[in-house]
Amino acid sequence: MILRDPVHGLIAFSGPTESVVVRLLDCREVQRLRRIRALGLACLAYPGGEHSRFAHAVGSTHVMRRYLDRVAALAEDVPPHDRIDEEHAIIALAAALLHDLGHGPYSHTFEAVIPGMPRHEHWTSRILLDPGTEVHQVLASIDPSMPGKVDRLIHGESEIRHLARAVAGTFDVDRCDYLLRDSYMTGVRYGTLDLDWLLMSLRLYVPEGQSEAYLAVDGEKGLTAVESFFLARLYMYRQVYLHKAVRSAEVVLRALVRRLCELGPEPGTPPALARLLRGETLSVGEYLDMDDRTLETAIMAYCESGDPVLADLAGRLRHRRLFKSLRLRPEADSAAVQGRLDGVLAAAGIAPSYLGIVDRVEVDAYRDDAALVVISSSGRRERLIDASPVLRGLSRERFVQHRAIFPPEIRGEVREALAEFR
Amino acid sequence: MILRDPVHGLIAFSGPTESVVVRLLDCREVQRLRRIRALGLACLAYPGGEHSRFAHAVGSTHVMRRYLDRVAALAEDVPPHDRIDEEHAIIALAAALLHDLGHGPYSHTFEAVIPGMPRHEHWTSRILLDPGTEVHQVLASIDPSMPGKVDRLIHGESEIRHLARAVAGTFDVDRCDYLLRDSYMTGVRYGTLDLDWLLMSLRLYVPEGQSEAYLAVDGEKGLTAVESFFLARLYMYRQVYLHKAVRSAEVVLRALVRRLCELGPEPGTPPALARLLRGETLSVGEYLDMDDRTLETAIMAYCESGDPVLADLAGRLRHRRLFKSLRLRPEADSAAVQGRLDGVLAAAGIAPSYLGIVDRVEVDAYRDDAALVVISSSGRRERLIDASPVLRGLSRERFVQHRAIFPPEIRGEVREALAEFR
Amino acid sequence: MILRDPVHGLIAFSGPTESVVVRLLDCREVQRLRRIRALGLACLAYPGGEHSRFAHAVGSTHVMRRYLDRVAALAEDVPPHDRIDEEHAIIALAAALLHDLGHGPYSHTFEAVIPGMPRHEHWTSRILLDPGTEVHQVLASIDPSMPGKVDRLIHGESEIRHLARAVAGTFDVDRCDYLLRDSYMTGVRYGTLDLDWLLMSLRLYVPEGQSEAYLAVDGEKGLTAVESFFLARLYMYRQVYLHKAVRSAEVVLRALVRRLCELGPEPGTPPALARLLRGETLSVGEYLDMDDRTLETAIMAYCESGDPVLADLAGRLRHRRLFKSLRLRPEADSAAVQGRLDGVLAAAGIAPSYLGIVDRVEVDAYRDDAALVVISSSGRRERLIDASPVLRGLSRERFVQHRAIFPPEIRGEVREALAEFR
Amino acid sequence: MILRDPVHGLIAFSGPTESVVVRLLDCREVQRLRRIRALGLACLAYPGGEHSRFAHAVGSTHVMRRYLDRVAALAEDVPPHDRIDEEHAIIALAAALLHDLGHGPYSHTFEAVIPGMPRHEHWTSRILLDPGTEVHQVLASIDPSMPGKVDRLIHGESEIRHLARAVAGTFDVDRCDYLLRDSYMTGVRYGTLDLDWLLMSLRLYVPEGQSEAYLAVDGEKGLTAVESFFLARLYMYRQVYLHKAVRSAEVVLRALVRRLCELGPEPGTPPALARLLRGETLSVGEYLDMDDRTLETAIMAYCESGDPVLADLAGRLRHRRLFKSLRLRPEADSAAVQGRLDGVLAAAGIAPSYLGIVDRVEVDAYRDDAALVVISSSGRRERLIDASPVLRGLSRERFVQHRAIFPPEIRGEVREALAEFR
Repeated sequence: MILRDPVHGLIAFSGPTESVVVRLLDCREVQRLRRIRALGLACLAYPGGEHSRFAHAVGSTHVMRRYLDRVAALAEDVPPHDRIDEEHAIIALAAALLHDLGHGPYSHTFEAVIPGMPRHEHWTSRILLDPGTEVHQVLASIDPSMPGKVDRLIHGESEIRHLARAVAGTFDVDRCDYLLRDSYMTGVRYGTLDLDWLLMSLRLYVPEGQSEAYLAVDGEKGLTAVESFFLARLYMYRQVYLHKAVRSAEVVLRALVRRLCELGPEPGTPPALARLLRGETLSVGEYLDMDDRTLETAIMAYCESGDPVLADLAGRLRHRRLFKSLRLRPEADSAAVQGRLDGVLAAAGIAPSYLGIVDRVEVDAYRDDAALVVISSSGRRERLIDASPVLRGLSRERFVQHRAIFPPEIRGEVREALAEFR
Repeated sequence: MILRDPVHGLIAFSGPTESVVVRLLDCREVQRLRRIRALGLACLAYPGGEHSRFAHAVGSTHVMRRYLDRVAALAEDVPPHDRIDEEHAIIALAAALLHDLGHGPYSHTFEAVIPGMPRHEHWTSRILLDPGTEVHQVLASIDPSMPGKVDRLIHGESEIRHLARAVAGTFDVDRCDYLLRDSYMTGVRYGTLDLDWLLMSLRLYVPEGQSEAYLAVDGEKGLTAVESFFLARLYMYRQVYLHKAVRSAEVVLRALVRRLCELGPEPGTPPALARLLRGETLSVGEYLDMDDRTLETAIMAYCESGDPVLADLAGRLRHRRLFKSLRLRPEADSAAVQGRLDGVLAAAGIAPSYLGIVDRVEVDAYRDDAALVVISSSGRRERLIDASPVLRGLSRERFVQHRAIFPPEIRGEVREALAEFR
Repeated sequence: MILRDPVHGLIAFSGPTESVVVRLLDCREVQRLRRIRALGLACLAYPGGEHSRFAHAVGSTHVMRRYLDRVAALAEDVPPHDRIDEEHAIIALAAALLHDLGHGPYSHTFEAVIPGMPRHEHWTSRILLDPGTEVHQVLASIDPSMPGKVDRLIHGESEIRHLARAVAGTFDVDRCDYLLRDSYMTGVRYGTLDLDWLLMSLRLYVPEGQSEAYLAVDGEKGLTAVESFFLARLYMYRQVYLHKAVRSAEVVLRALVRRLCELGPEPGTPPALARLLRGETLSVGEYLDMDDRTLETAIMAYCESGDPVLADLAGRLRHRRLFKSLRLRPEADSAAVQGRLDGVLAAAGIAPSYLGIVDRVEVDAYRDDAALVVISSSGRRERLIDASPVLRGLSRERFVQHRAIFPPEIRGEVREALAEFR
Repeated sequence: MILRDPVHGLIAFSGPTESVVVRLLDCREVQRLRRIRALGLACLAYPGGEHSRFAHAVGSTHVMRRYLDRVAALAEDVPPHDRIDEEHAIIALAAALLHDLGHGPYSHTFEAVIPGMPRHEHWTSRILLDPGTEVHQVLASIDPSMPGKVDRLIHGESEIRHLARAVAGTFDVDRCDYLLRDSYMTGVRYGTLDLDWLLMSLRLYVPEGQSEAYLAVDGEKGLTAVESFFLARLYMYRQVYLHKAVRSAEVVLRALVRRLCELGPEPGTPPALARLLRGETLSVGEYLDMDDRTLETAIMAYCESGDPVLADLAGRLRHRRLFKSLRLRPEADSAAVQGRLDGVLAAAGIAPSYLGIVDRVEVDAYRDDAALVVISSSGRRERLIDASPVLRGLSRERFVQHRAIFPPEIRGEVREALAEFR
C-alpha cells in the first residue's frame, strides 16, 4: 500500500509484518476517524486546520515504521529481549494506527465538555477489546492475545520499555506526527520539527547494573532536534491549541452542553448523546456512531430550538459567531475578574451566568523528563535539562493564557469593567 | 483582518474597500462553505485532501486582491474605463469570495449525480439575488444594485473585460487558488504554480483600433509561469480529480442515488434531498441546509436500510469499501466492454446492472485560449500556442482515462472477461 | 559520516561498503571540486546559483545509494547476475562521486571555449587511472582493478546493464541531483522532480528471451514522476542553462580566449592555461591545478593588459558588464543576421568582428529513449512516448533560442538593423 | 530589475527611487562581493553553504524595501519627521545594499585572523567615502552628501531613529536576510524566521513626552515571530557559525597567518596581503583586490613552500584536512587544558605550540534590547523580556562551546590527557 501524504511525502506499507496496517485501515472503526477533525474547533481560527484523525493515524503509523527501522539499526546496542521481533512490530504498528480510535466528536473538545465523560483512552480500550469490532477481529485473527497487547501498549505498558515510551512518552510517534501535521495544515510554521535528524540521533542504552534499554539522544547530533521538538510543542499550544478563537468556541460549546443538560431531552439530540447527557453508559456501537457529523447535525437542529439560549449558542457555533475575549494579565485575580464579569452580565440582563467566564490556562514551557537522557560524545550521560541551556531556560518559565470570554454585545461594558486587570 | 493560510502565508484584508470581505465572511452562507469539502470524495484517495470550500474561497479572494494590486500597477497601460475603481474592486473581491456559494454536498460530485440538478452556478445566483440571505443584505447595504453586479461578474459578465476574465477565464483567481491548494493538501506536487511570477508577468494591452484592454503575458518573463499553470491543471486532473479511487467512489455514490430514486422515500432522507430526488425545485433556504454533513447523516441511515442494495452502497461509502477498477486501453470499444461487464454481473447474479460501469473520461491536455496573448520583447503579439512549444505539443494530445468499475467480488471474472481490452 | 544537505536533507554513509565514499571524499581531487562552480557563469544571472561541483558530487552519491536500496528491494525480479553485490555497490558509489572529477574551471563552459580541449570525461578517466592521484590510490587499495572498473562505469560500461544506465542514461543519478540542486539554488522551481516517487516506481524486468534486466517504470504509479523529470530538464535549460545573461557571458569568455590565442603569451596567464592555449597536452597534475580560482586570477591580471580588447573583455567578466542580446525569431536566417551584425560592428569601428555573434541553440523538448519502457498494470510494456501524451506532445517540438549578442554601445544600431528578424 | 532569489522568491526594484539599487549593483565594488563567500570556511562543514556576500546584499536590500513599505503603511502613527521621504528611502536602500562592502576574504574570518586588521565596517566607510570608487560616484551623482549619509546610516546614525535601528539594530534587515539565507543554503532549518509576520507585526510609536518614533512589536500578533527570530539566531550560531569543523578550519587559518608573519615574505603572497601582514595600511584599491580567490591562490602557492609547517597548514586548508577537536565541559579550566595540550604537543615533537589550542566561545542565549518594546492589545508597553517567557528563560542562559583543537596525529594522546575535562 502506497499513499501520498502532504506531511511525510510517500508513505508505504509492504511485506508481511506491515500487512496488518493494510488490514486495519479497512476496518470501519478506523475509517470512522475520517469523520473526526483532529483539531476540533481550531479550524474556526485556522481555515486550513480541517484535517481528520484518520490522516493523523496514518502519519503516526508511518513514524512508528521509521522508529522500528531505527531500532533495528541499533539492535547491537541492546540485549535481545529489547529488540523488536515480528510480533512486537505488529503490535507497535497497530498501536500507532489505533491509538486515537476512541476520540469522539471534535477530538479532545468533546470529552472536555461532556460532564463525567470517560476520556478517549477509555473508549479506545473498549473498542479494541470488544469482540464485535472489526479492529478486534483483525487483531485477534493474528493471535487472540493481540487486541489486549495492542491496548496495553497504547496505554504505555510493554515489556519493551523503549517501545512503550515511543507510543506514550515525552516524544512519541503520536506527537511527532501531530506537531508536523497541525503545523503544516494551519500554516503556523514556528518551531518546525526535524524528524529525520531526531530519528537519526536516537540511541538505545542499557544503564550499568540494569537489563533494560532506555531511549537516549546523541548530544552532539541531536540536541537541537530535541529542543526544536519541545519548542514546536510550545508554539503549537500558544498559536493554535490555545488560540483565543478556539477557546472562545469551546466556551460556547461547553455552554451549549450545559444548557442541554438543564433543558432535558431536546428535539434533534441523537439518542447516544441524550444518554451521555443523562450520565448513562454507552455501548461501543452507540459511541462509534458519534462523530463530528452527528454533533453538527444536532447543532443544526438546535438552531431551531424553542429555547432562545440554546438556539443562540447553536447558531453561534454553526455560523461562527463566537464570543469575544479580552486578554488579562497573567497575575490578575481570576475570581475578582469573574465577579466583575458576572456583574456586567447581570446588569445587561444576560443569563445564564455561565455565558461569561474567565479562562485561565497555564502551561509549563518545558517539563523535564528524567527518563530521557543525553549521551555526550565522550559517553557521559546527562539529563536533558543539564545538556540544553534552551530547555533549562524554558523549564523555569510558564506560559499563561488568561482571558475573559463573553457575548459580543457587552464588549464595551466588559472592557471598562476589567480595565484594571489587562 | 489577518489570517494565516497554509498556501498563501499571511492573508490580510484592511481598509474601507476590503472591509466588504470581512463583512461577507461573517455571513452564514459563507460560513456554510466550511461544511463542504472542496475535493468531494477525493479524500478517500488522498487522506490530506479534506479542506473545505471555505478555505478556498478565502484564498481566491486573496488572489483577487493581488490581481487588483497588479492591475493598479499597470493603470497607465489602459484607458480610464478599464481601471478598477473602488466599486469594481468591491464587486471583484465579493465575486471571488462568493463564486462557490452554490456548491452542494461534496462540491462538484453532488450536482453530477443528482438527475436534473441545476449546476452550482445557478444556485450561486439564487443565493446572491435572494433578499433573505445575509450575503444579499450585506451587498445591498452598500448599493442595491450590488448583488446583481456581483452575480454578473461571477458569470463572467462585466463592462471591464479583463476583470471578467480574471473571475471566469482560462486562468482566473479561482483556479489559481484551487490548483495551489489541492496540490498542497493532497501532497501531489507536480507542476506547481508560480503565482508571484504569473502576476508579475501579466500585462494589459489595448489592441489597435479597439478600446478595451485585454490580458496578456510578457513572453520573455512569463511563458514558463503560464505553461506551469496549464501543466499543474493537467496533473491535478490526472493525479487527483480523475484518480481511480475517486472515480470509483463517485460510481458508488451515483448508484446509491439511482437506487434511492428507484426505491422512493427511504427513512433518513433529509426532506430537501427527498424533494430533489423527486425532481422538485428547492427554496434557497432548503438548499442551503444541505451540505456534506446532511448527506453523510443520510448515508449513515441508509446503512440500516431494508433494501440490501442501498444498504450495501451506503456502507461502501461510509466505510470506504470502494468498487474495484480495471484500466482499459484508451482505444478500447466502451460499448463492447460494457457488454462483457454486464455479462459478468449477470452471471454472478449481481443486480442492478448499473453496479458495473465503463468510465471513460477524455481531457484535452491543453485547449488554446485565443483571448490570451503573449507579448514578445519586441512588442509583437502571438497566440500562446505559437509562443510555447510545450503548449503547442500538448494541444495535439488528449489525456484519456478508461476504466471498468465494478464490485470487488467479481474482480477475477472481470479481469478475465476484459483481458483483451487492457 | 552524516551531513546536512539543503536538497536531500540528511545524507549519511555508513557501514563497510559505503566507507569507500568517506575515504574518497578526503582525496584532494574530490576536494578540488569545491573550487569549481557547478553552473559556471550562470551565477551572473541567478545570484543563488553559486554552488560547487563538490556539493553535487555528494548529492549524486546519495541518489546512487538510494538507487542501490531500490534495486535491492527488487532483487527477486532479476537474475542473480543483475543484482548488486558488494563490489558493484562500491564501484557504483565511487562512480557517482567521481563522475565529475575532470571538470575544469566553470564546469562545461571551460571545455566549450578552449579550442581543441578534451572533454571533461576524458580528464575524469585520466585522473582515475593515474597511479599518482589520491582517488586512484584509494580505489586501488581495495582492488587493483577498481580504478578501471569505476572508469568504465562512469563511461556507461558495465556488465550490469541497468547500473550503467543509472550512471550514464536518460535519467541517471547525476541528472537527478543536478536538476534538484540547480533548481533549489537558483530559485527556479518549475517542473520539480519527485525523487521519492521516481525511485519507488522503478522496476527491473527481463524481456522474454533475454537474460539481462532493464530499467522500467510502473505506468500506473510513475508516469507523472517520469514526465516531471523531463519537464524539469526542459525548464532548467530554458530558464537557467540557456538564460540570455549566461549565454552573453559565455560569448564574452569565448572572445577573451580567442583574443588570448591571437595575442600569444600574456602576463598573468597560469602556465597550464598557456600550454592549453598553445594546444599542448597537460599532465594530470597541471590540469588539476586549474579551477575557477585560477581562471579568475588570470582574468584579474588581464584587466591590466596592454591590449585594450583583452582588458575590456576581462573587465566585463570581472565586473559583470555583459554584452547585450536581442531575441530573434526561431526561423530567422542566422547567416543573414550575422551579416547585418558584422556591418553594424564595422560601421561603429568595433573590432575584432567576433565581438558580435549570432547565438542559436536548438534543444529537443523531449527525445525518446527506447530503452526506457513503461509497464502497465496489466503487465503490458510500452515505449514511454506511447504511454505519455505529455512526452508524445513534447517529442514533436523543439525549443529554439536565437539571439544576437553584441557590445552594449551599439545596442540602438543593432536593434534597427535587425528589426525584421525579431 | 527583476531577479529570482531562492530565499525571497521574486525580487524586483522599480521606479525612480529604487533605480539607485540598479545603478549600484553595476558597480565593481558591489560585483566584487560575488567573490567573497558569506559564510567563510563554513562550507567545509556544510557543502551547501557556498553563497556569496553578493546574494546576501541583494537580499538585504529586498528586506529593506519591504521595511520601507511597512513604514509607509504606518505613516499615520508617526510625526512627519519620522516618515521616510524619497531621500531617506534612497539612503536606506543604498545602506542595505552596501553595508558589507568592506568584507575581506572569507568574510568575518579574515579580519579575525590578521593581527591589527581594521574591521570590515572601517573598510566599508573608506570605500564609500573614496571619490575613486564607483559606488561613491553613483551616490555622489545623486547628491554630493549622499556617500556620507549612507555611511552614517550603515554605522547606525540617522536623524530617523527607527531607520538607524533597521540597519544596525537587534533585528535589522541584514540579520533578517542572513539568518534566512544561511539556513536555506546550509539546510539547517531550525528556528526559521517568519519574515512576513515579523514585518506585519511591526509598530512605530512615540513615547509620551518624546518626539521620536520607536520600533515596537504587536504583542498579540508578533511575539512568536520575534522569538523565532532570536531562536533562529541562536541555532545558526550553534549549528553553523560555531560548528566544530568551522572552528577547526579557522584555527588552521589563524596558525597559517601566524606562521606567515614569523617567516616573513613567502613566495606567492599577494602584495596587498604582504603589506597587511607587515602591519602597513592598504589603499582602497589594494584592499578591493583582495577576495576569496586571492587568498586561495596564495594558499595554493604555500602548499609548495619550503617551510614544512606553512606547507602543511596550506595543504590542510586546500584539501580539507582539518584539525581534530575534542569537546570539553563548559566549566573546565581552559588554562589547565591548554597546559596539558601543550605537553602532548611537546611530547609528540609537534611545533610550533600554537598548533594546539583551546577554543572557548560563550554566547548569550538572548540579550535583551531595552529599545525594542512590545505593545499589548490594551496598549500597554512592556519590555520584550517581560512579555515573552521564552526569551526570559533564554536570557538567563549562556551557550558555551569549549573545545580543544589539535592536529589529528595526536588524537589518541589528547583524548587521554584531557579525559577528566570532558
